[in-house]
Amino acid sequence: MKSFGQRLDAVFDSVGQLCVGIDPHSYLLSEWGLPDSAAGVRQFGLAVIEAVAGRAGIVKPQVAFFERHGSAGYRALEEVLAAARQAGIMVIADVKRGDLGTSVEAYGQAWLTPGSPLEADAMTMVAYQGTGSIEAPLALAEVNGKGVFVLAATSNPEGVELQQAVRADGRTVAASIVDDVVGWNATHAGESTGSIGVVLGATVDFGDYGIDLASIARTPVLAPGFGHQGAGYSQLSEIYGASAPYAIVSASRSILTAGPSGIANAVAVQAREVLECRG
Amino acid sequence: MKSFGQRLDAVFDSVGQLCVGIDPHSYLLSEWGLPDSAAGVRQFGLAVIEAVAGRAGIVKPQVAFFERHGSAGYRALEEVLAAARQAGIMVIADVKRGDLGTSVEAYGQAWLTPGSPLEADAMTMVAYQGTGSIEAPLALAEVNGKGVFVLAATSNPEGVELQQAVRADGRTVAASIVDDVVGWNATHAGESTGSIGVVLGATVDFGDYGIDLASIARTPVLAPGFGHQGAGYSQLSEIYGASAPYAIVSASRSILTAGPSGIANAVAVQAREVLECRG
Repeated sequence: MKSFGQRLDAVFDSVGQLCVGIDPHSYLLSEWGLPDSAAGVRQFGLAVIEAVAGRAGIVKPQVAFFERHGSAGYRALEEVLAAARQAGIMVIADVKRGDLGTSVEAYGQAWLTPGSPLEADAMTMVAYQGTGSIEAPLALAEVNGKGVFVLAATSNPEGVELQQAVRADGRTVAASIVDDVVGWNATHAGESTGSIGVVLGATVDFGDYGIDLASIARTPVLAPGFGHQGAGYSQLSEIYGASAPYAIVSASRSILTAGPSGIANAVAVQAREVLECRG
Repeated sequence: MKSFGQRLDAVFDSVGQLCVGIDPHSYLLSEWGLPDSAAGVRQFGLAVIEAVAGRAGIVKPQVAFFERHGSAGYRALEEVLAAARQAGIMVIADVKRGDLGTSVEAYGQAWLTPGSPLEADAMTMVAYQGTGSIEAPLALAEVNGKGVFVLAATSNPEGVELQQAVRADGRTVAASIVDDVVGWNATHAGESTGSIGVVLGATVDFGDYGIDLASIARTPVLAPGFGHQGAGYSQLSEIYGASAPYAIVSASRSILTAGPSGIANAVAVQAREVLECRG
């Protein structure tokens, strides 16, 4: 069985680093002429999968927009996940789950177990209760060839004070999470691309967090903050330095606002743009 | 319309402060003679509601154990939530959601909107991206008479270093979240019990976090860490001081392990014990 890191390498080499968000906001559903319902988010999600197939390699559904419609929304998401698997598209479930013990393990089982109704290739997690609290899903990811992306330095201004807070050991909250993940990968993946990644926003000055990008290479980086949120694809190397080849370049609004008739072209154009920046 | 804080006052005065966890772990399902499936978590949840009805006032479903079964698990949870509403039991959905912008707002809409399939009375949230990032669901809670509990100082050792990290303004991460919530309640609830609460574990030394319990009265405290996890009900005042009358005393394993035949009695006995500690 290939690890998530190895599968990520293969996707990057074949179709590149673009990751297309599946964010069925109510206003986007309306722009797309779809109802604000479970049926609407299902159609939206399936249309994005169809547009991405053969043009890019990774999607990132924002699960909040499915959860908003309760069990019917989750049923819709299950169909979208199945369609992605069918099309050979890698899925990062953007769920930002976090908890302790058997609870956080249950979240891992929900998203990272082969054959689970909500099976994805990777999920996002938050470690407010410490990275030690999420070790069960990290271990589960390794066993199942799946991945986890832990929030470290996000791209929103409200998060700066917490994420730059200094721990007793002198490291910032964000840097210690990055260290923990890099350490995990060193143990589990050795010299290969790791299966556990970090979320590092593209509009963040990493020096302010004491994060040294030169030391985290081979740890995948989920990189929101492109397109609508500010950063341009051409800045990929400038922003992520040594981590640029391991960055999953995530774009949502700049692609989704192309609408049902324009999205396939928007994906193709932006995937090529990102591929060209790979150098 | 009554606020969540006002409804919480009424529950405390009538049946007391005990909150019963609904945690259908696979090992508990097995002990209860139930299958590890959506049908199993449904039966488990409905049995807990039946046992709590008339004996205690609040339940806290751990949503991870439902999510583990995908959309069918969510369908089961919807039935459990409906049964709780029917029985007049207050529900705190333990989901620990957190995100930004329209995403976090969608989480709020999922759990805090009257008539939503997943409607609860309150939800737990995590503010790794800053308390500013979760203001949309806090505002939604106020409008809908609902509540939110934000993780501050949890009862697990792995969380200590992050939650005690010191921000640029000299406050710890946990203390600043408490301050933000207390400030929110001062603005929105005035002298009444607030509708936004904090999660403060019972096995935590609050002085280590710079949290002064004397200054947070009338902000509800969700208090895990009783029963199986260590603290005794008789320590309620000793641990929570001025906040003790506003503490939701949460117990799961110590009640759920009584099994289907013993749970009603376990709830009655423990609810009385907690009520006696109210003084």
